[in-house]
Parts: sequence; C-alpha cells; structure tokens
Amino acid sequence: MRTLSQNPGPRGTNEIGDDPASSVGGGRPSRAISHLLVTGGGGFVGGNLVRMVLRERPAWRVTVFDSLGGRLSTPVLDGLREAHPGRFRLVRERITEGGSLRRLLRDDGVDAVVHAAARNPSGSGVGDPVSFAEINVLGTAAVLEAARAAWKEGQGTFVHLSSYEIFGSHPEGLFTERSPLNPSTPYAASKAAADELTLAYHRTYGMRTLVTRTTNIYGPYQSSDKLIPSIALRVRDRKPLPVFGTGENRRDWIHVDDHNRGVLLAMERGGAGRVYPLGARCERTNLELVREVARCSARILGFDEEEAEALIAFAPDREAHDARRALDPATSESELGFAARIPFADGLQEAVRTTLLDTGAPAVIR
Amino acid sequence: MRTLSQNPGPRGTNEIGDDPASSVGGGRPSRAISHLLVTGGGGFVGGNLVRMVLRERPAWRVTVFDSLGGRLSTPVLDGLREAHPGRFRLVRERITEGGSLRRLLRDDGVDAVVHAAARNPSGSGVGDPVSFAEINVLGTAAVLEAARAAWKEGQGTFVHLSSYEIFGSHPEGLFTERSPLNPSTPYAASKAAADELTLAYHRTYGMRTLVTRTTNIYGPYQSSDKLIPSIALRVRDRKPLPVFGTGENRRDWIHVDDHNRGVLLAMERGGAGRVYPLGARCERTNLELVREVARCSARILGFDEEEAEALIAFAPDREAHDARRALDPATSESELGFAARIPFADGLQEAVRTTLLDTGAPAVIR
Repeated sequence: MRTLSQNPGPRGTNEIGDDPASSVGGGRPSRAISHLLVTGGGGFVGGNLVRMVLRERPAWRVTVFDSLGGRLSTPVLDGLREAHPGRFRLVRERITEGGSLRRLLRDDGVDAVVHAAARNPSGSGVGDPVSFAEINVLGTAAVLEAARAAWKEGQGTFVHLSSYEIFGSHPEGLFTERSPLNPSTPYAASKAAADELTLAYHRTYGMRTLVTRTTNIYGPYQSSDKLIPSIALRVRDRKPLPVFGTGENRRDWIHVDDHNRGVLLAMERGGAGRVYPLGARCERTNLELVREVARCSARILGFDEEEAEALIAFAPDREAHDARRALDPATSESELGFAARIPFADGLQEAVRTTLLDTGAPAVIR
Repeated sequence: MRTLSQNPGPRGTNEIGDDPASSVGGGRPSRAISHLLVTGGGGFVGGNLVRMVLRERPAWRVTVFDSLGGRLSTPVLDGLREAHPGRFRLVRERITEGGSLRRLLRDDGVDAVVHAAARNPSGSGVGDPVSFAEINVLGTAAVLEAARAAWKEGQGTFVHLSSYEIFGSHPEGLFTERSPLNPSTPYAASKAAADELTLAYHRTYGMRTLVTRTTNIYGPYQSSDKLIPSIALRVRDRKPLPVFGTGENRRDWIHVDDHNRGVLLAMERGGAGRVYPLGARCERTNLELVREVARCSARILGFDEEEAEALIAFAPDREAHDARRALDPATSESELGFAARIPFADGLQEAVRTTLLDTGAPAVIR
C-alpha cells in the first residue's frame, strides 16, 4: 500500500480539457488523427468501426490488431485492403503479447487506439472467468502499457469500448456515466476492471484515455450465436425460438453504426479521463424483441409472420441475472453532439437481411 | 454480450442470509470453519492473520499458499510449524497456477479461503500495471475458480482483502461500503477489479464470497519500504525523513491485528456477497504521522525526540494522487460486532520496537 501520495496528479494533456464543467457543446475543436489502431478490429463492433472509418475519414490510415482466433481473415474485413489501397492493414497477433504492439505504436505513427478486443460470453452460460480476466483485464493493461511506452505525453488518444453491463440491473430509471459499478457476472466484472484501469491511466499518467459505455448493440456481421442473428436463423430453419423465463427482462438496443459514430465523436471531441454513455433510447422486453425479429425475418424470407411468431417457446431460466438495463445518453448528446439516428425497424431489417441472405456487404444506413 | 438473462440469480447459500436488512447484530450464528487457506500468507497482513488464527482459533488448521517470491521462508512464518504441530502448512506456489490450489482445496478439507495475495506498489512510484493486472486480477480469478471447482454449493467461504484505495480521494466525509469505486492508479484499479470479481462470484454462482476493505494498515513484520518502518529505520540511521509535498495528505490507520479480527468476524459472521469496511477512525496527516513515528523511534532508541523530528525534510511531490482517504467502519461494527481496540500510540510503539530491535516475535497487544 502506498502511503505517501501528495501529488494532485498530472493534468490532462489534451487540448480539450478534462474539466466536466468546461466540456460543453459539440462544436469543440476536433482532435486531429492520422492513424487509428483498432484492437479486436476483426470482431463485430471493431470491424464495423474499421469499415466506417475507411468510408468516412478518408485521410486516416487504419491498422487492425486482432489474432482472429487463428483464422486468416474474417468476413467483416474482407476486401478492405483492396478497396482502400495503402490505408488498411491487418496484424494478426494477440493483445496479451504486448511487444509487437508497442513497436507498432511507436514506429508507425499511430496516434489513436480504439480498444475493442474483448472476450465475451458466447451463447448461453456465463463463460470462463479466468479467460475474461486474462483477455479483458490483462489484455487491456498490455495495450495501455504499450501506448504509454510508445507515446510521448499528450501524443495519443486511447478509447476503451465498454458496456452498460458493468452497472448490473436497474428496476427503474436509467444508467448514466455516474452510475455506480455493480457487475453481476465475472464477465461484467472484467469489463468494469478494464474501464477502471483505462481511467486510472489518465489519473496517474495524464494519458488521454476515454471510455464509452454502450447498451446492447446489433447490426451486420454480428456473430450467429447472438440473440438477433440466432433468432433470424432459427426462423429460417423453422426451429423453436427460445425465450427464457417470462421474457420480461428488458434491454436497450443501439445499431452498431450509431454506436461507432459515438465512439468517433468521443475520440475526436471527448474530454480526457471521461466516460461517455452511448445508447438509442430503445428499450424492449426480450419477448417484444424476439417477436419483432421473428416477424422481420418472416417478411424477408417470405414466410407467414404469424407462423414465425408462433415458433416462440418459453424455456427455463438461465444462469444469469440482470432484470433490466437501460441507459441515458444525454451527456454524450450535450457534450459530443452525439445522436443515434438509425430507426430500430430500419436497422433491424438490414441486420436480419444480412444474416439471412448472403448479399456481401450490407447497405449503409444513414 | 449476453442478451438473454432472465434468471434473478442463484440465492446466497450461507445460513446467515445475504439480505442487508437481516444482517444485524454481532450475536449471529458463527460459521464453523476447520481448515483455513491463506493466499499471500507469507506477507505482512496474511502472515499476521495466520499467527492470530493459530493463537486464537485452536481447532483450525491453516495452510499458507504463497510463492514467497522464491524464498524458502519468511520471518512472519518462522517457527510456526514447530510451535503448532499438525496445524500449520506452507505450500510455496504461485496463485496464477491454479491446478495445485484446486487439488488442495478439494482433497484436504479446506472450508475457508482468505485471499490476501496481491502485488502492491513497492516504495515510491506507481509500479508495473501489467503485473498488477496479472497478480491481482488474473490471480484472484484463478483462486476463485479453484474454489468454485473444489467446493460444493454452500460449502466454503471466500474472503477477499481489499483496501479503501479503490475509492480514490475524498476531501471530506468518510468512505463507506456503499461509496462508488473511483481508483486513481492502475494498482487501485486492479484491487477494485478483484473486489468486483469476488462479488460477481456470489451473484453469479451463489458462492459465499465476501470482501473487506481496510484503511492503511501498520504493525509488526511490515516491509521496510512502507512508511512507518522506513521512517523508524531512517531515524535509527539519522537520515533525513522525507515528507512529500506539504505533508497535508491524510490517511486513516488501523493496526494489523484489529484489521485481522475484522477479517475473521466477516468470515465467520458476515453475509454472503457483502462488503465490510475495516478502520479504526484514526485519521492523520502524513506530516503528523511522520512526527509521531520519529518521536516514538527516538524514545525506543534513546535519542532526543526534538532532534529526531528535526530530521523531517520536505521533498517534491511524487507521481501519486489521493489527497485524503478516511473510512467509516460503522457497518462492520453494527453487523459483525467489529471494534478496533488497539490505541494508535500502543500499536505504533510495538510496531516500531519490532522494526528497530531484533526481538523475535512481537508482543500480542490485546
């Protein structure tokens, strides 16, 4: 235990300032970025972010740092090298081996990192707690250390992508960036840990680190074991659609592109050491959601909507917890100019269409 | 991200109940324990706890699980095997290698774990963030997983020893078990992560896990790089006594035996999934503390007290943060019957005496 610690701490080094009171308006100066590195850039959220940056930030280069679980490529990144010559690179390595990441950050002009790499619980169950600690906490520490070693003070921006899952459950009201952390599961605890570690790097070293916390995300390229794609595929195969418990648990949904616009705003305009909540005020019970996905899938497949909805089958409760999660993005709206713009019905239709029909890249929803 | 999680979660499985409203009074039934394993039992806090248990819980066996940093023994454990035949065992292994810990918990009737193993910042500076994540987070996950694999539901008790450092700084008022986590440093973030992980094991798996959070601890066998021993040794050597900044930063102090009685109370009487604050309402500025240690050391050494105090030398601020930390132990007092009993002057004199004079084991202060 340290006992002598009188220093009020290094100050934030970004030009924007880390004083919440001064962080107003979306018209603040934008941080200039030329080379973005995305850990976990082969995943659903990171990969969609990479596509968005290549499309909407034409002056930036993008490096994806992702082991891809040993695979050579992944659909969300297919064709990007050819479509954007000299602007896209894939480095297939593990974040927990920090040496090459450090060299990359130092020698190649990377001035922003979006840390999207994380181990998530896949499918049912709560997953392996040790692997969450290893990938989500030790991995985050390794990436933060690489950035600290590579960047001179004030030189780079580090954004950690987090989730409202760290707040636990909330019977009423909305989570904000000031809600206390109360994670229910080892996975959520590991994400909370990565958040705290990221923010401590600002407090301790003055690094320009930021955290975004999102609601549930949906959109194209989402893994087929996640709720929306799995329901769509089960409708296609005319299999029962499991709804656990009463289906009354509530979640809040945001399209991946709305989410990722918020990430870019935080990176370019956010205050160092700050937390930005990203959501679309789109709360639904799980039963309502499964019904919508079933009907949407039926329309795309040319099936009868009533018949698709009749596939719903209630199943016993699972080993899990949070009755309700919902989030208020007001701080990101007022301070960053963030606004979720994609209507759920439109976003859902595009996501389900991409899941069900092998159409290549999805349409961009604006 | 898991999306379907309707289960309200397994209930606590201890006989005491995890409902805060029902957790009143120190007269509650005490959890029967026969074999306690202490990770980090070769350290200052864990080692003093082992000595206390061998002395005050004569029916218990104690296993220390501690790599001892590669050493064969450590002063705090010296002589315990001989003094308590058949009751004490030392297993020199690393907690991050969980296999042997799991076998030990399963095959040897261990029914309680105090997880005291942690990497602390040593001396000045904030230390190595990756090693904090590895030892404090991944290590805690490994010990929790070993316990979960070894114990049938409701069979064991797991207590994680944490610190008020996870709350950050507090200009006025006191931290309680309900204060939000706001760690300033990578070390503090890693301890906060271990707390959340421990509590998530109760919420997710129904394990009887508890957390204690302490103020600054002092007492015999403390490492010579910590504040009180280092000041005592510098007085002995007539070296300057560094006080960083203005010396006005405030910390709250508790004797290690008072702390460890609180840990035993939490283990035996505490509610599953609960957090117990341990402190002695003993707040001091660092300058006040260094003065007291200087005068106390001088008395023991037969030096002039004024001359010892004159060794104080103000030094530039260090890379550190929290202006004030102080904690309210009221919840532990009312729910566990906890009470810090060792007057600071008495505890300090014994700690300094043990540091300065090679007297073997310190006297027990009651």
